[in-house]
Amino acid sequence: MKKEYKKLAPENRLLLGPGPVEVAPRVLNVMSNPLYGHLDSKFLEITNETMELLRYTFQTTNQLTIPMSGTGSAGMETVMVNLLEEGDRAIICVNGVFGQRLRDMADRCGAEVISVEAPWGKTIDPEDVKKAFKNASGKVKLVGIVHAETSTGVKQPLEEISKIAKENGALLVVDAVTSLGGVDLKIDDWGIDACYSGTQKALSCPPGLSPVTMGEEALKVLSNRKTKVQSWYLDLSMIKNYWGKERVYHHTAPINMIYALREALLIIYEEGLEERFKRHQLNSDAFVSGIEAMGLSMAVKDKEYRLPTLNTVSIPEGVNDITARTYLLDKYGIEIGGGLGDFKGKVWRIGLMGESSKRNNVILLLNALGDALMQQGHRVDFGAATEAALKVYNG
Amino acid sequence: MKKEYKKLAPENRLLLGPGPVEVAPRVLNVMSNPLYGHLDSKFLEITNETMELLRYTFQTTNQLTIPMSGTGSAGMETVMVNLLEEGDRAIICVNGVFGQRLRDMADRCGAEVISVEAPWGKTIDPEDVKKAFKNASGKVKLVGIVHAETSTGVKQPLEEISKIAKENGALLVVDAVTSLGGVDLKIDDWGIDACYSGTQKALSCPPGLSPVTMGEEALKVLSNRKTKVQSWYLDLSMIKNYWGKERVYHHTAPINMIYALREALLIIYEEGLEERFKRHQLNSDAFVSGIEAMGLSMAVKDKEYRLPTLNTVSIPEGVNDITARTYLLDKYGIEIGGGLGDFKGKVWRIGLMGESSKRNNVILLLNALGDALMQQGHRVDFGAATEAALKVYNG
Repeated sequence: MKKEYKKLAPENRLLLGPGPVEVAPRVLNVMSNPLYGHLDSKFLEITNETMELLRYTFQTTNQLTIPMSGTGSAGMETVMVNLLEEGDRAIICVNGVFGQRLRDMADRCGAEVISVEAPWGKTIDPEDVKKAFKNASGKVKLVGIVHAETSTGVKQPLEEISKIAKENGALLVVDAVTSLGGVDLKIDDWGIDACYSGTQKALSCPPGLSPVTMGEEALKVLSNRKTKVQSWYLDLSMIKNYWGKERVYHHTAPINMIYALREALLIIYEEGLEERFKRHQLNSDAFVSGIEAMGLSMAVKDKEYRLPTLNTVSIPEGVNDITARTYLLDKYGIEIGGGLGDFKGKVWRIGLMGESSKRNNVILLLNALGDALMQQGHRVDFGAATEAALKVYNG
Repeated sequence: MKKEYKKLAPENRLLLGPGPVEVAPRVLNVMSNPLYGHLDSKFLEITNETMELLRYTFQTTNQLTIPMSGTGSAGMETVMVNLLEEGDRAIICVNGVFGQRLRDMADRCGAEVISVEAPWGKTIDPEDVKKAFKNASGKVKLVGIVHAETSTGVKQPLEEISKIAKENGALLVVDAVTSLGGVDLKIDDWGIDACYSGTQKALSCPPGLSPVTMGEEALKVLSNRKTKVQSWYLDLSMIKNYWGKERVYHHTAPINMIYALREALLIIYEEGLEERFKRHQLNSDAFVSGIEAMGLSMAVKDKEYRLPTLNTVSIPEGVNDITARTYLLDKYGIEIGGGLGDFKGKVWRIGLMGESSKRNNVILLLNALGDALMQQGHRVDFGAATEAALKVYNG
């Protein structure tokens, strides 16, 4: 007797966590198109358009601006393994889980890693990066830093650190997993040499691809390597020949995921980056106002450094994290994220990114969250929360 | 002025190359379902079912049987980086592009690689593997071999080589990218310690995931490592805790691709492995009969070692490879593959896998290929080709 498997029919969910987030129906629908071969000239046109749209979104003219065939962490690893060789020196900035991951990867490349740390919820201080260069026992190849720390909700200013890296002849590598397409990020203007992101955050596409961009200086480092890149799968010296004019086979491109990414990027292009950033800021501002009116507080104390895409709310004392999140899921189908690492059980991570960044979601979530708190005996002023949010929207 | 991008609307294609191949509409359609979060218990049920169905397809009880978040080559790299450490000794069998790739990866892991070679189009001789063990200067950690060499169309017998590996205390690692789901492959019965595949071949799913299975012996090697796995993204010591009972976050699983894989595996489960293997063999036999009746010849001379999934036809003298393939694409929308490496310009690679392995496709392709040959002044007996194929079908 064969086991019976049910037809796949996902239950209703509203994804307001750290990702994946909501995906527009038109993006979901393009994935159902029949496949092209990965060397079909018609498919190559699609990849050309995808690169064009990625350059627009990254605000760069970098030729090598492509989606890697893996999730965001594959992009992180791509940049690390291609730029670092055994014995290289790297300054890695760590103020959350993703800085830790970056450090772990640099370490696995055999690099000598110099950590620059900041407390969770705080930004990295450029002065500390300067000091790290001063104290380094020799040439530093790159500085790795997270623009949007998904574990804490911190937005890291990059321009000053970029200058410091340049003055010291080092490359600047930036993690933009939770900022690309939702928060201003100027690859060229800010002098970022290599950057990666994921599709399931502010790009509002399903997870599975990792957009990566690399400038001329980074490509020079790549072409001057003494050793092979330790990953064959992520070796850009070969992969750039598939995405470049040569169109040489490396591995089979994930056709339908690229259909989806192109469509998600088209939505961004149609909306326009400036409008999109404004929308993300507005919805986040409204949400934060509501949260504060409710008597809760944000985990990132300094407004200026809060990510609009990923909003970390401190869990009030006496409130059980998992009970509250389970309630939201059961009664509303709403997913929000729990804390990671140092922030486990201490914060909720609210993703207002891409399709999830909407007035409807903000108003609903404030009230649903209030309901979940009330279930645990926490007094909530619903009126104040909604009114505070509306004040942001309606002025 | 913004550039106008057209709505994505792929042209009609019939994919009969080395992959991606045709994908069933129900597999394409499930990808358009809304997303779950990657830690949602409802999604975890889907991952459990996917693992169950993968075990069925791999004919294994291995607990660690999961789809890696990358294409087939990511699976190859997964197995290599997890099992090999710097200085380890590996015997790699090379009789085509994918054996070469496996060797390249073992080399990037810092392993001492002993190559066992065979000419393109031939199988690896177990005696040569035996000799390689004898001549090795110390313990060999693993033997890597390709079950279905996509570049040549050779099907490699594995049981004898498995015995030799066991006798010498080495693991057997098998590339089953173009066999899993189309050609008999018994992970447990044949003593295969680690195996990987891709979704876009005989599983008839879009590209983007790489099923991997690892047995107890391989897991022991993994847990006894002295050094960290050089890839963070592919580190199974962490990834197994997402797919295992712990369900610890590692990276965001590619939700919609997993929907697709589950559906493609369900089709296999419903058809049954035996029926499926028979179907693949039948369609290949009919195709080969037609090809030979047309006066062409198969690149793999020995019938016994021909893959039914990937059929390599020698391009007749005087026939231009690219002209013929372009004609097929233009007039029929049919994609077949050209040769790789040593076989470039010398063979066509015809994929009759999954949804592409159908009587209709065989009959159509024989005649379309005949047409393409005729365009280049090559005399073709269409009647003989069709009749030979029909004889296989109708007995």
